[in-house]
Amino acid sequence: MTDLKNQWLFVKRPDPQADSSCFRLVETALEPLVDGHIRVRLHYLSVDPYMRGRLDDVRSYAPPQPLGQVMEGGGVGEVVESRHPKFKVGDKVLGYFGWQTIADSDGRGVRRVDDSIVRLPAYLGAVGMPGVTAWYGINKVIEPREGETIVVSAASGAVGSVAGQLAKAKGCRVIGIAGGPDKCRMVTEGYSFDDCIDYRAPDFAEQLRAATPDRIDGLFENVGGRILDQSLSRMNALGRIAVCGLISGYSGESIPINNFRSILINRLKVQGFIISEQPGIWAEALAELAEGVATQRIRYHESIAEGIESTPEAFFGLLSGRNIGKQIVRVIRDGNI
Amino acid sequence: MTDLKNQWLFVKRPDPQADSSCFRLVETALEPLVDGHIRVRLHYLSVDPYMRGRLDDVRSYAPPQPLGQVMEGGGVGEVVESRHPKFKVGDKVLGYFGWQTIADSDGRGVRRVDDSIVRLPAYLGAVGMPGVTAWYGINKVIEPREGETIVVSAASGAVGSVAGQLAKAKGCRVIGIAGGPDKCRMVTEGYSFDDCIDYRAPDFAEQLRAATPDRIDGLFENVGGRILDQSLSRMNALGRIAVCGLISGYSGESIPINNFRSILINRLKVQGFIISEQPGIWAEALAELAEGVATQRIRYHESIAEGIESTPEAFFGLLSGRNIGKQIVRVIRDGNI
Repeated sequence: MTDLKNQWLFVKRPDPQADSSCFRLVETALEPLVDGHIRVRLHYLSVDPYMRGRLDDVRSYAPPQPLGQVMEGGGVGEVVESRHPKFKVGDKVLGYFGWQTIADSDGRGVRRVDDSIVRLPAYLGAVGMPGVTAWYGINKVIEPREGETIVVSAASGAVGSVAGQLAKAKGCRVIGIAGGPDKCRMVTEGYSFDDCIDYRAPDFAEQLRAATPDRIDGLFENVGGRILDQSLSRMNALGRIAVCGLISGYSGESIPINNFRSILINRLKVQGFIISEQPGIWAEALAELAEGVATQRIRYHESIAEGIESTPEAFFGLLSGRNIGKQIVRVIRDGNI
Repeated sequence: MTDLKNQWLFVKRPDPQADSSCFRLVETALEPLVDGHIRVRLHYLSVDPYMRGRLDDVRSYAPPQPLGQVMEGGGVGEVVESRHPKFKVGDKVLGYFGWQTIADSDGRGVRRVDDSIVRLPAYLGAVGMPGVTAWYGINKVIEPREGETIVVSAASGAVGSVAGQLAKAKGCRVIGIAGGPDKCRMVTEGYSFDDCIDYRAPDFAEQLRAATPDRIDGLFENVGGRILDQSLSRMNALGRIAVCGLISGYSGESIPINNFRSILINRLKVQGFIISEQPGIWAEALAELAEGVATQRIRYHESIAEGIESTPEAFFGLLSGRNIGKQIVRVIRDGNI
């Protein structure tokens, strides 16, 4: 191992757009490991939509990302040195290690993972935070019944693709919404949704209506804006909406919603949630997701960017919808898979 | 009793505004009472915001009011003739008897009421549908905890005034929103809210912020539009919003909402509901409300319009916010109270 690590510092808040000038890559010397800590060599980093919200210095569910510090985020890697009683060298671990090649941690929030069952990067996606988000929204908010119509926005993404497959397994008619024909094909052919609508199509509203002849009983909402608004107008009586991300609002612009009235007219339940606040369900959700992925009942797809240098670019690509599936950064080019 | 009854027929849908040309008052001869039916002489009629929605021929939670028929609505009166085994002459009854002086009914949805405990018209307000709506929104949706801040829009109205008093009884800080200084005074002095903000004030948003230093934990939403939008921006994490009416949208205009994102940021629960769909809670709610009103722990206020002729005018006054408290029409001028 080298005596240096690479780190992406967050150096400038978006004004208002986030761009590459917000981050700076630095080389930092490794210090001796503190007692009670582990040192992790990162194999894969996660970039996720929620990170955009944290770049702004505004009140939100998480404190803003501090300026001048390593950009925070989830990752998986291997313990290369341990002065912590619960971890040993060679352990594969998942944690919020930040955008860097090597991370020291006191072990809080670090989870040991088994890469003989599920590939390591999948712990950042279908068997990680995005998968658990999908699991909670479907099972604890929407609670779909057989035969109901469930609509999932950002359907080709890490969260949406799992949400739709979980609803499908419950006997629902599942309609995805995604951006562009390639993503839509992935949603119907790869993830077996019943249909997928391109939100860029000029007749999007018309297509959504045609694809939901019995209206919408459950909406898994990842996007917000116009897509949410159209879906609201198609809701059935007593419908449920899980709101776990509003990508179209992550860049700070306001999202005017015209069909709020549907909440009254259709007696909807709308529930916003952040999966990190639901620690009680992680074990059950992860077990189910790992089994689904291992048996290929749950499919997933990754967009992998190569090298720590590519992290901001991968993140911006995610925000503008250029990725398909879970966006991952491979830190070690000569990886172990 | 005369051989004639007066009836308000609904004769024209709003285009787009509802006005007096939508209704026509007719005199109708009484037919012999059908077996299994009761004949009720109405003492008081109710006019309610939800009626506006039913005038339009659009999909909503209730089928549209049919054209050419007696305008539907709740009322209380006395059984003057009975061919129904469960009701006898002299019974005081509450039911959806419509805008008319005399109604025949097969008894479905008719409830016997005791006007020795609570005055008859209160069964149309604090101890009727509006009171039960308030009770459900507070106890089943918002579930306020002691010390929380609860905001109630349309606070001087039949629903809002009860909602605020129920929250107050649970040890909450309760802030009303109402239109104009007279209504605001009624809310703080009559109903003992901690504060009330005039939504017509140019610095409404500023005042709302000042009145909710600890932000808003529960919002009882009766109005929609700008008021809802401002309140959304003041919600606390894990807040709850009961949506039981959106008066500002009853006339068909769209209600753009800019702060929908607060649902995600603050992990809000937003629940639309229609009280008629919750039959299971009526008995408990009514018993509690009747006791509260009888012991004067729950205060209420009525605006009473005189005579069946005044019904549409009273209804339009309600929609434009001219009434204070529950809007009632007294059908019998030489009433029994």
